[in-house]
Amino acid sequence: MAIGEALGRLEAVVHDRLAAGTVEASYVASLAAKGRGKIAQKFGEEAVETLIAAMSEDDPALIGEASDLIFHLTVLLAERGIAWADVAAEIDRRHGTSGHAEKASRS
Amino acid sequence: MAIGEALGRLEAVVHDRLAAGTVEASYVASLAAKGRGKIAQKFGEEAVETLIAAMSEDDPALIGEASDLIFHLTVLLAERGIAWADVAAEIDRRHGTSGHAEKASRS
Amino acid sequence: MAIGEALGRLEAVVHDRLAAGTVEASYVASLAAKGRGKIAQKFGEEAVETLIAAMSEDDPALIGEASDLIFHLTVLLAERGIAWADVAAEIDRRHGTSGHAEKASRS
Amino acid sequence: MAIGEALGRLEAVVHDRLAAGTVEASYVASLAAKGRGKIAQKFGEEAVETLIAAMSEDDPALIGEASDLIFHLTVLLAERGIAWADVAAEIDRRHGTSGHAEKASRS
Repeated sequence: MAIGEALGRLEAVVHDRLAAGTVEASYVASLAAKGRGKIAQKFGEEAVETLIAAMSEDDPALIGEASDLIFHLTVLLAERGIAWADVAAEIDRRHGTSGHAEKASRS
Repeated sequence: MAIGEALGRLEAVVHDRLAAGTVEASYVASLAAKGRGKIAQKFGEEAVETLIAAMSEDDPALIGEASDLIFHLTVLLAERGIAWADVAAEIDRRHGTSGHAEKASRS
Repeated sequence: MAIGEALGRLEAVVHDRLAAGTVEASYVASLAAKGRGKIAQKFGEEAVETLIAAMSEDDPALIGEASDLIFHLTVLLAERGIAWADVAAEIDRRHGTSGHAEKASRS
Repeated sequence: MAIGEALGRLEAVVHDRLAAGTVEASYVASLAAKGRGKIAQKFGEEAVETLIAAMSEDDPALIGEASDLIFHLTVLLAERGIAWADVAAEIDRRHGTSGHAEKASRS
């Protein structure tokens, strides 16, 4: 299961639900209706749980909490009109090239 | 720029640096050498900065902090031997199918 | 209402409930029964809510969340056998003396 | 060392430094000059470090991080014009009475 496809699907689902805006029908729409502070709060809570799972050395919990964190980060970004592609470009700008350079230097 | 490719490259770079273990040569190796608590601390700090950027409605800062968060989450996962593919599978399990079902039901 | 007296009462209540250990009877005992990770998680969640209230410039919310944060920090400390007096001594060691010196130098 | 006196002194020092506003002279003034987001960020970072110290079962670290957290919370509150007495009143309102009632019921 590739992360790019998973995030692509996740992003599409979140956008659909934000656009639909039927609060009763989806968690995303009901979260967005409560405002940015509530989305940020849920994101923060998932970050706390990810951190605790990491410190507890509980791998299944870490995978689960990381999934929830990524989900709420997708909502947080979508609510601001930011796509994963924007984050991907920034990751590549900050890490991609230097990583390739380091790999090359070790070859 | 696709997020899947960016995360794939990021994961490869992090794994290379963890394996190389030359502390002087890379931030990842020096962070890993300080132990799980230090990686978790950096992850937590980036989550705090992402949250503040979101509340400040500062989009460039949000993109930058989300990139740093994803980078440190990649290190946190790699240190536990967890791949982005594991998280992707969990995301799909939790959100993918229901998302497809919802999309289908609206078509 | 002095903070010292409020924290003294809070600490006494938390210790009583931890000692009583009757899970049905109190939130503190039921939280402690779930282990350190759960107390830490609640503490982390209150920190997130305090941070969001601060960024939202919502003073009543900030007072309320700071109260909840202090409450859960009291439980976190009590579970480790740490008293507020220990934290007070450290605060004075780190800030008290230099503060007095600074005040004195301005008099 | 009573926590009430320690917090009283801490609050006085923070207020003095905020009022003095000489950025070069003190950490508090320089932090305040960078704005609410920076104070909130430092508060959040100390919360992360407190959480990690708690999960690591490192008592001296927990006492030290709790001290730093309380210090930055004092700055966060002071910047909004909120006194520890306001938080104390809220703590008593939420926990004091019910605690006394519970103690009485067990006597």
